[in-house]
Amino acid sequence: MANQDTPQQEEAFTSLESIGEFNLIEKLTRDFPLRQGSSLVGIGDDAAVLDFNLEQTVITTDMLVEGVHFDFTYVPPRHLGYKAVVVNLSDVYAMNARPTQITVSMAVSNRFGVEFLEEIYAGIRLACEAYDVDLVGGDTTSSYSGLVLSVTALGVADEESIVHRKGAKPTDLLVVSGDVGGAYLGLQVLEREKAVFMGNKEMQPQLQGNEYVLQRQLRPEARKDIIELLQGLEVRPTAMIDLSDGLSSEILHLSKHSGVGFRLMEEKIPIDPTVYKLCEEFSLNTTTIALSGGEDYELLFTLDVKDHDKIKGNPNLSVIGYATDLAEGNNLLTRDNQIIELKARGWNAFKEDTTP
Amino acid sequence: MANQDTPQQEEAFTSLESIGEFNLIEKLTRDFPLRQGSSLVGIGDDAAVLDFNLEQTVITTDMLVEGVHFDFTYVPPRHLGYKAVVVNLSDVYAMNARPTQITVSMAVSNRFGVEFLEEIYAGIRLACEAYDVDLVGGDTTSSYSGLVLSVTALGVADEESIVHRKGAKPTDLLVVSGDVGGAYLGLQVLEREKAVFMGNKEMQPQLQGNEYVLQRQLRPEARKDIIELLQGLEVRPTAMIDLSDGLSSEILHLSKHSGVGFRLMEEKIPIDPTVYKLCEEFSLNTTTIALSGGEDYELLFTLDVKDHDKIKGNPNLSVIGYATDLAEGNNLLTRDNQIIELKARGWNAFKEDTTP
Repeated sequence: MANQDTPQQEEAFTSLESIGEFNLIEKLTRDFPLRQGSSLVGIGDDAAVLDFNLEQTVITTDMLVEGVHFDFTYVPPRHLGYKAVVVNLSDVYAMNARPTQITVSMAVSNRFGVEFLEEIYAGIRLACEAYDVDLVGGDTTSSYSGLVLSVTALGVADEESIVHRKGAKPTDLLVVSGDVGGAYLGLQVLEREKAVFMGNKEMQPQLQGNEYVLQRQLRPEARKDIIELLQGLEVRPTAMIDLSDGLSSEILHLSKHSGVGFRLMEEKIPIDPTVYKLCEEFSLNTTTIALSGGEDYELLFTLDVKDHDKIKGNPNLSVIGYATDLAEGNNLLTRDNQIIELKARGWNAFKEDTTP
Repeated sequence: MANQDTPQQEEAFTSLESIGEFNLIEKLTRDFPLRQGSSLVGIGDDAAVLDFNLEQTVITTDMLVEGVHFDFTYVPPRHLGYKAVVVNLSDVYAMNARPTQITVSMAVSNRFGVEFLEEIYAGIRLACEAYDVDLVGGDTTSSYSGLVLSVTALGVADEESIVHRKGAKPTDLLVVSGDVGGAYLGLQVLEREKAVFMGNKEMQPQLQGNEYVLQRQLRPEARKDIIELLQGLEVRPTAMIDLSDGLSSEILHLSKHSGVGFRLMEEKIPIDPTVYKLCEEFSLNTTTIALSGGEDYELLFTLDVKDHDKIKGNPNLSVIGYATDLAEGNNLLTRDNQIIELKARGWNAFKEDTTP
């Protein structure tokens, strides 16, 4: 009855699966011209850039949905609160900015008690303390099923400090912080133990030896330290992004925005020993996991070659490749000297199964 | 298994109903000291105030959940998108600020098609155009059931222009824009026609004559015009809030934050003729609806008596009472000269039934 002014919507139907997340966002958000002089960058980067006079402000937002992004069977609510903040701050750092405030909105069904929500907020509080950000607003409401958390983060930076996804040029070095693939394997361990637990509720989970990947999945950190390190070294990345969807997918983002190709060297990809061990246990290819496993929240950036000496030998940073002309495409150089085209195979918000 | 570090949460259980929304928020958000010099006002007002140098920034956020805040049986998706933006902008105006940017996050189940979501964004776009704000970010993800929309709005104002919930003083006039109760009756009409429709799907809804209240419910506007009017008249409210939860509830907010009481005069409350007519149809008390019906998105503010002449006779503004000493409490002076204590009976996020 109320759809009289939009009768066509009953007829046409394009499923979300068929269009894909990025196309959907592009489709939905086109035709939104920027009107404010203070809106310097809108949709399309890790965060939007606003100019409020002397310092520039960045704002970013992420929504986490129960059953899609987390499973309370094995995610402690305190860790969820912490992670919900961290994933947003990671986007702020990926702009080379300093996070300053967050807002948190939450929809919850009456399945949850106050104490449970307090635990979520205890995690949010821990993150605020660890990263020196202020919770300055939010909304709490009911839902008919499950829990949804929506966090928005603001940050500030000098105009000349902000780093975008665009800006990489051929010959720039491709650098990643920390190591990759751990968060994905943490999820596999948790899912395996959940299956065992569901089969026999007397069973205790076997998590020993896998602490590193579990922490990567359950309680990730944003790389504040890397931003501070680069500033101390007076190194400004030419382009930067955080690793939420997997290395392949993020390299392709940098490629698209910067108009360059990338050559990634398999032997240079930093991988923790626990990840090698678990890939064997799960019969998974380690490089596939490194390329497609999401949620590592490391920083991926490009540097002018003249800055190489400044970061060389730093155990937190790995040079994993370099930018090329766009025409050369985005490729992986394998250990046995084969060249394989990189494809985005990371997290797709409208699929339930994220197995690479 | 994963709750080993928080074992106590399995034992204690306080239901959300028993604690109430405001207590819950207070409980969850205490112990969040503000750390940034730029955080001037955090939780507790219509919007947080941030100081980014010369101009101050306000940020506010609201989450709308299907089945809780809207019902697609009678809410066209385009109207939903428009309203989701407007309810946030209303909070920005309630700070006497000018909205500048929004972010929109959305969780959707695969029950929805692309076209339907495009309609939602068409409504968002219309609101951006009408209020001259920029969409600068967001997140789109899946949900297992229903649709959740989370909007965050930023606005700017000079430091001396921002108006808080605190600031009212005894003898100040209490003023409301437009009229009240319409949105609630719009909802009643829609629910009535839905019930008829569910009983017999061949029935066409009877909406004629009720266009005003339907528009108040389905496609509300934020009072940008009132903020501009007051600026033109060089009137700065001493305290201000927007009407989302009902007149009683918002008066009590102003009372609590400003440390004053209020005397509200029943005969002065502005009510549209359609509301009188429908209250008779539904056997509802008009004043009860005016006090407790939510979602009117009018502005409620206090003025120094010296400004009375400037606004007197303006058809968009009604003086409905005045502030008193706190000790006198918050009361309604009825048409027959009775004095009745005002109670908050507006929207409670954790109850499904909002009938006053």
